[in-house]
Parts: sequence; structure tokens; C-alpha cells
Amino acid sequence: MKAVAVVGIGKSAFGAFPDRDLRSLAVEAGEKALTDARVSPSQIEAFYLGNFAAPSFVGQNHVAPYIGLELGLGPVPCTRFEAACASSGSAFFHAVSAVGAGLYELALVCGVEKMTSQTTAKTAEILAGAGDAAGEVRAGATFPALFAMIARRHMHQYGTTREMLAAVAVKNHLNGSKNPLAHMRKVITMEQALAGKPVSDPLTVFDCSLISDGAAAVVIAPLDRAREFTDKPVKVLGIAQTSDYVALDAKEDITTFRAVRAAGERAYKMAGLAPRDIEFAELHDCFTIAEIVATEDLGLVAKGQGGPYVLEGRTCLKGERPINASGGLKSKGHPVGATGTGQICDVVSQVRGEAGELQVARHSVGLAENLGGSGATAVVTILGAA
Amino acid sequence: MKAVAVVGIGKSAFGAFPDRDLRSLAVEAGEKALTDARVSPSQIEAFYLGNFAAPSFVGQNHVAPYIGLELGLGPVPCTRFEAACASSGSAFFHAVSAVGAGLYELALVCGVEKMTSQTTAKTAEILAGAGDAAGEVRAGATFPALFAMIARRHMHQYGTTREMLAAVAVKNHLNGSKNPLAHMRKVITMEQALAGKPVSDPLTVFDCSLISDGAAAVVIAPLDRAREFTDKPVKVLGIAQTSDYVALDAKEDITTFRAVRAAGERAYKMAGLAPRDIEFAELHDCFTIAEIVATEDLGLVAKGQGGPYVLEGRTCLKGERPINASGGLKSKGHPVGATGTGQICDVVSQVRGEAGELQVARHSVGLAENLGGSGATAVVTILGAA
Repeated sequence: MKAVAVVGIGKSAFGAFPDRDLRSLAVEAGEKALTDARVSPSQIEAFYLGNFAAPSFVGQNHVAPYIGLELGLGPVPCTRFEAACASSGSAFFHAVSAVGAGLYELALVCGVEKMTSQTTAKTAEILAGAGDAAGEVRAGATFPALFAMIARRHMHQYGTTREMLAAVAVKNHLNGSKNPLAHMRKVITMEQALAGKPVSDPLTVFDCSLISDGAAAVVIAPLDRAREFTDKPVKVLGIAQTSDYVALDAKEDITTFRAVRAAGERAYKMAGLAPRDIEFAELHDCFTIAEIVATEDLGLVAKGQGGPYVLEGRTCLKGERPINASGGLKSKGHPVGATGTGQICDVVSQVRGEAGELQVARHSVGLAENLGGSGATAVVTILGAA
Repeated sequence: MKAVAVVGIGKSAFGAFPDRDLRSLAVEAGEKALTDARVSPSQIEAFYLGNFAAPSFVGQNHVAPYIGLELGLGPVPCTRFEAACASSGSAFFHAVSAVGAGLYELALVCGVEKMTSQTTAKTAEILAGAGDAAGEVRAGATFPALFAMIARRHMHQYGTTREMLAAVAVKNHLNGSKNPLAHMRKVITMEQALAGKPVSDPLTVFDCSLISDGAAAVVIAPLDRAREFTDKPVKVLGIAQTSDYVALDAKEDITTFRAVRAAGERAYKMAGLAPRDIEFAELHDCFTIAEIVATEDLGLVAKGQGGPYVLEGRTCLKGERPINASGGLKSKGHPVGATGTGQICDVVSQVRGEAGELQVARHSVGLAENLGGSGATAVVTILGAA
């Protein structure tokens, strides 16, 4: 496989935008990425769109050509990928695979979701479709309930505390407060986080990511052509997509995501790197516990040590290994289909040294982890300076 | 790109199955394809699932790992592709591209839809999501209405008649009556077809395909390894996926599908073949007019000659170039997400000479055309004896 590089990135703001529709958000992100890569729509040979639930949120299915043609693309393959919250991570994985295999020279990958036009109850119902509808969902489990069970078990098994969960929220809100594209730019204290309104015990409102509208896009090309399009190509060092059972009760151990472990191992192997080489990461903190579990599953700390790791401040913006410098899903927002490509944009921006107030000190190798549902899909990407 | 072969096929029956759920249909087709290819689930390196609207029809999203893990696959990439009625055609296109590029040696492609658990009104609403929701759908257009406009314009411009449309239905019902897996095994006469209950003038109930449950799957491998898995490998001679506007009113000419023309040109070029080389075809007859337009767009006849072509009997089972020997979507059924892989199974079965009562005389080169929405996605595949 040829080396692949990200040569352009573009994001809309993440937030609640009653005046913006799905397509305008995606087109904004896509056009920014094309401009950043100095390419015209007619040069794009394939369009990969990640979207979770446009049919349910806004009544529009078949969204890849719906957006691709509006972007001015030619009659190229425009394809929608759906893998719950890992939809655009999956789109990115397939695009990188295709360009790496020599199928296309220039591909555009976009992720988008428009979530805020529905009621909270309807939104919870739509999100529950990423779980086992006939099983756990029918039994009443929403996603906060599933991750609450994971958190409770992690606390029981490893001594993880409410303070450790809250530390994720405090850190990510602080980071996000400096991110001009973040949904919730609000600093919170440990006391506030601990006193949050309960959602599903032990998770409070501060343990849950946000329901957002937004889009993010990247342009990729073979590394050996990357400098035609950008002065700062960022190389895909390693990438993998893996799968596991959708239902939580089918898993042997709910304190770990087998798919994340497998994707991490494959991505490290492809990159020829080990966890210790990862300088910073964007991890899928759909709930605070998910960030803690991800640090463990990716080998950034030993199993059970994810809680102390964040509580001790080692993953804060100025810490030894910043995690979710962008603010994460917790503060930046979680427009489901846009989250995977959003993470890629954030890591690329760091590697380029263009992250402004959010810039991390060591930024030559970063990792993005995108999780679908309660771990049935995982995409892990390692990016680095080219 | 390496040559790719289909080494296993499997289909569930298409029909209305109140006792079957989405997953059991997909698993049935997948297991049959694996058995046909003599491979175990653990040998499969990537799973490509085409599904249009499981979240809306049955409340289940994230369906690729949901089905893949039930099939016993390992932690491989399980990915859902959505491209309206071309969902599994698109999944097949991406799978063939990946295997051809050397990314995987064995891939399983499946298409599935479970449609009959909803009311007709709700089903029409879900299907309308494949059109332009904020435009034509909001204005009241359902899919029969969109294709009625196409038919009316084709009649106006080329002299196509109601008899010609009805000839498609009569032919496909006759073929389907011999297909043990078809949804509606009922012979109809020209008189019956012409006297059908109006749906959207000029289309009657006999011009519309069926709302069905069903699944179809194929296993693919590099051609140079194909004989490890089957005695009758069928080669993918050419394949392409293309895109066009979703909204009908964005198109310059609604009597032709630009995406089908482009996909056909690319597939012919890749195969080194011309339309005259196509001995039989499975075309996307979601409505009778769509089969007529497809024969023209694929160059099987001159523009405007698709109507006379079918009326003269030249595309019947014993005609010079059988079209929809399987019964087509019209009689076989149209479980949306399963239609693309279903067509591939049908063409492969013909090339192998295993189509029984439906066997066509000349069967060394066949074509499958899978259409998404009113032409926003097209996938054209040419298959032949290896």
C-alpha cells in the first residue's frame, strides 16, 4: 500500500444551528477542505460521506450524491458510510485504503450530522438505533444507560471514582473553552462536575457529550503527490477499522472495547509504532468513561489506570500526553456523523502546528479513536508529520 | 487492478415474511454464500453490507457489525453502505475495488431489507427519503410520481406507449413465475397489465415493483485464487459506480439517467467490451419505464427504442437478449438493500449455467444495473465466464 497524506481539512462550527440544514453544513466543510488543499471539485475522484441518521433526523436518505453534487463533484462514486458514531471514521478508513491501494489520486471525505431539529426524546430514540434495538433498547436502555453500566463496572473492578470521571469533563471543557468551533465553550469546576444533574447513575449531565449539528471534511492524496496540494502534508502512519458485537450483553467484559484494542494493534503495527510513541490523541469521549477506557484499550496506560491518569492531570493540554486538546465530544460537540472526520481535522491541525491556543507541545505523532455505538465499530488512525 | 471473481452466492427468498427479522434474512443469505464458496466465516477479511433504511423500517441502525458478528466473522471491518436502491450495488462495487486493489483476499458482500412490517403509507414515506426530501418530496412527489413523470416525458418525446410499459410487466411476471425465490409468481396478460389499478398516471400497479423482505450475498476473491473456492468462478469483467443529482428537477433531461450512461461507459471500457457483447442483463425495473430507459442508457438499443425493443419480444427469456430473466424487481421483489447483490447472484447463476427453468441460451457475458433513487446513484457490473 502506498503512503497516504491528508492534504486539506475543513470544519463547520459544531453547535445548534436552527437556520442551517444538513447539506449546507456539509458543503461548508467540504468547500473549506477543497480550498485548503487548493483543488477544485472536478479533481475529486471519489466522495466518501459519513452520516449516521439523516433519514431519521431530517428525512433525507441517499445523502452522498445529495451533498456531492451540490459540492460540484463530477459523476464520481459518491458513497454514504454508516457505522453509528464511527460513520465518518469508517468513511475515512475506506478512502485511505482506496487511495493507498492506488484506486484514486484525490478523494474527499466528509462527515455530517444535523441533530438539533428533533426533540430530546426523539433524538434519544434515534441514537438508540446504534444499539441492539430488539434487545437492550427494547428493555429500556438508552446510550447513557449503557455507558453508565460500563462506568459502574469499571468503578467496581478498578476502583475508578466519580472524581476521575469528572476530571475528564473538567479537562475537556477547559480545552473546549478555547476552541472557536466548539459547541460549548464553558469552563466547569470539579465541584460543578460532581454536582451535575444525574442522567443515568453514575453519569451526570457533565459526563455526557453534546447533541450537535456540524460537519468536517478532509482531502487525501498519495503522499508522493501531497506537496502539489499543500505545504504541510500530514501522513497517515497507521489506520484500522474493526468490529465487535452491537449488544453490550454479548461482550465478555464491558470494561474494555475489544474492537478498539484490535484496531489499535493493527494501526500501531502498520505505523511501526508503539503506544509510547503517541504524543497526543483525540479519543471518543461520548461519555467521560469512554475516554478513560480508550486510554487503557489503546495501551496509553495499563488496564485500570485510565482514571488516575486523567485525575493526575497527565492528559491536560500542558500535560505529558494531551488528550482531547480540542475539547473532545464533551465540549466541542458530537454531531455523530461528523465526529470521525472532525477528530482527523483536529489531529492534522495539531501536527501542522496550527492549533493556536490549543496547540500541544509535542505534535509530531497523534492518534484519533472513533467509536461506534457501545463498541461495535472502532476506527483508529495514527497521523504524523510527513 | 487484479481481476476479481465471484466465488460464492446465496439468497433468501424474497417476499413478505412476518416471522423473519432483518438479521435472520441477512444471515441466511450470508451463510448460503459462504457455503457455496466453501469458506468459513473466519476466513472473511472484510464485510460489505448494503442496506437502505433499517433504522426507519425496523429501528436498527449500525447493521453491519450487527449482522457480521452474528455470521461469526472476526473483528474485521464490517461496513454499511447506503445508496438508496443501489445500496448493495455500491457495497459490491467497493468490495470488488478493494479485492482488486489487493487490500483483501476474501470479502463477503450482503444486501438486506426488511420492509413489510410497516404500513404502505409509512413505507412510501421511508422510500421518499431517497428523493429530495426538502424539495420534490415536500411538494408531494412519491417515487411512483417521479417515475410517472419520467414515463410521461418518454412517451411524449419518443412515442413510447402504455403497451410497451405493460410488455415489461408481462415479460417479467412470466419469468418470475418460474423463479422459486420470487415474491410474486403470477403470470399476467397484456390485458390485465393494461387494466391495472392506477397508481400515478400513466403507471398502474403492474408498472410498480414490489415491497419485499429479503437478502442476497456474494463472496469475492482474486481471480487467480478463485478455483480454491469454486469450480465455477465468475469474473467481474467491468464495474463502475457513478452519481448524479438526487432531485429530478435538477436534471437536464429526465428521459435518461446520466449516472447510468457514465457507469455503463466506464464498465464497458474496463471490460474491453461494447453493448453488443452483452448477451443478457438484469436491469433495475423499479418501475417498468426504468427498464426501458436502462436498455437505452446502456446502449443495448438506440435512444427512444427501448419500448419497441421489449414490445417486440426481443428481451424475453427466449429472445435475442433476455432482460430480467429472474423476473426483475417487478416479480422477484425489491427488498431495496438486497436488490444489487440479488442481481449479481442472478447473473452469476446464469453464467454458471445453473439458472434452471430461467436459464438463458447465451450466458457467457451478463450485465447488472442497479439504480439508486431517481438516478442519483448507478452501479453497472459486467460479469462473465472465467
